[in-house]
Amino acid sequence: MKQFKPIGIFDSGVGGTSIWQEIQQLLPQESTIYLADSKNAPYGNKSAQEIIRLSKKNTEKLLEMGCKIIVVACNTATTNAISILRKTYSVPFIGIEPAIKPAALKTKTKNIGVLATKGTLSSNLFSKTAEFFSNGIKSIEVVGEGLVPLIEEGRLNDLKTKKLLKQYLSPMMKANIDYLVLGCSHYPYLIPVIKKIVGNHVTIIDSGEAVARQTKAVLKSLNLATTPSIVAKHLFYSNGNTVILKELLKDYKEKIDIEKLDF
Amino acid sequence: MKQFKPIGIFDSGVGGTSIWQEIQQLLPQESTIYLADSKNAPYGNKSAQEIIRLSKKNTEKLLEMGCKIIVVACNTATTNAISILRKTYSVPFIGIEPAIKPAALKTKTKNIGVLATKGTLSSNLFSKTAEFFSNGIKSIEVVGEGLVPLIEEGRLNDLKTKKLLKQYLSPMMKANIDYLVLGCSHYPYLIPVIKKIVGNHVTIIDSGEAVARQTKAVLKSLNLATTPSIVAKHLFYSNGNTVILKELLKDYKEKIDIEKLDF
Repeated sequence: MKQFKPIGIFDSGVGGTSIWQEIQQLLPQESTIYLADSKNAPYGNKSAQEIIRLSKKNTEKLLEMGCKIIVVACNTATTNAISILRKTYSVPFIGIEPAIKPAALKTKTKNIGVLATKGTLSSNLFSKTAEFFSNGIKSIEVVGEGLVPLIEEGRLNDLKTKKLLKQYLSPMMKANIDYLVLGCSHYPYLIPVIKKIVGNHVTIIDSGEAVARQTKAVLKSLNLATTPSIVAKHLFYSNGNTVILKELLKDYKEKIDIEKLDF
Repeated sequence: MKQFKPIGIFDSGVGGTSIWQEIQQLLPQESTIYLADSKNAPYGNKSAQEIIRLSKKNTEKLLEMGCKIIVVACNTATTNAISILRKTYSVPFIGIEPAIKPAALKTKTKNIGVLATKGTLSSNLFSKTAEFFSNGIKSIEVVGEGLVPLIEEGRLNDLKTKKLLKQYLSPMMKANIDYLVLGCSHYPYLIPVIKKIVGNHVTIIDSGEAVARQTKAVLKSLNLATTPSIVAKHLFYSNGNTVILKELLKDYKEKIDIEKLDF
């Protein structure tokens, strides 16, 4: 029997499952282990030091479980901790960054919106990327304060969620954006509500597909890809409530296992 | 002083410099070493065994020179040798494959053309990719017999080159293609001539940018990227005539070194 060598994925909660879906679609033969650190969600308001500590804890759990590559499916953890993770552990790490570049290349109104957590927008990595790519383009950045906890509670269609989104998107709409970049892996679950607010002329961009493509390229380059003949296993562990996780992943219930785990 | 840790690139000759240009543009801070195995060009008609032997020779030379990652900037070497290279050496390898997928996703006429070498079109890796992605799409594949030697001789605008291209592209034009995939890293140098033959309604796709993006993702994931403060060096070694190499790279002459080397 071949060794079980899954792709490890972690997030501050359930949001990174939007990334998992893309990885699973592009790499159907690969097994995965997903850690939802819901107990400590949201990461967005925590100090860089605390985010690094939590990211190391999650990484070590995934390495213990035999993961061959780690996907940091959390923008806040990527911007604050990934360079330290890469220096500390020998496996490859894939991070998620707001897809500013494709938006900046495509905008016609020269105005793009970025909705992200405080931890992402205030990080060094974010400012560098934004400055580098948005030459001549104005980007309206808004902190999505309070959205992650609402998604963690499964309140995707809640009145409070809609009210907050309207408030955050309003300055972007006034600035005539035509691209909206979602800079938090939780936010793709809000796309149906966001679409109703911003209308059809604003294109919403998230980074899930790019993360999946990068994961594929890295696995291939290092000869770590699994042969297609193997049946993939998908294990989800949450240190919080598993109800929302099960709800968000109900379309996949035949092929995944969701369990509670203290980590 | 920091260690010199370049990106290694090899090709059966000068064609892979089209890939080098994309890498250099996306990763300007990275040093590179390029091996042009012009003495053994073209690879396209050689046996798989011979292509593997040459690819190993090139790889070992680049590793001796301290390269941290190897880009196989030759479609024929990728399809025939990259899986063995990945099993044999511990550095990451990036390969180049014909960009069938983007063409298959975008075609409106449902017909795409693929111009590549015999070695690429007849390989297992190619048939798998083509079958997988071209579901419902017809792909007209033609071997570009004789084109690589003409490019190696710098005869980009030659009457013979034009005549061969007309002959190879004719069945594609009859099949009403709207996308033409260049499946050999030499061929981007023929784009001006090809454009005159196929006209404006055919979009030409090569894989250079995708290779550069993959290289970037892999370097990042393994913490192998060079910090932007370092001035990049670019060394080109050819075991054949360096005249054409110098001609193709004349726009870069201020920042590159081209030398003859027996390898």
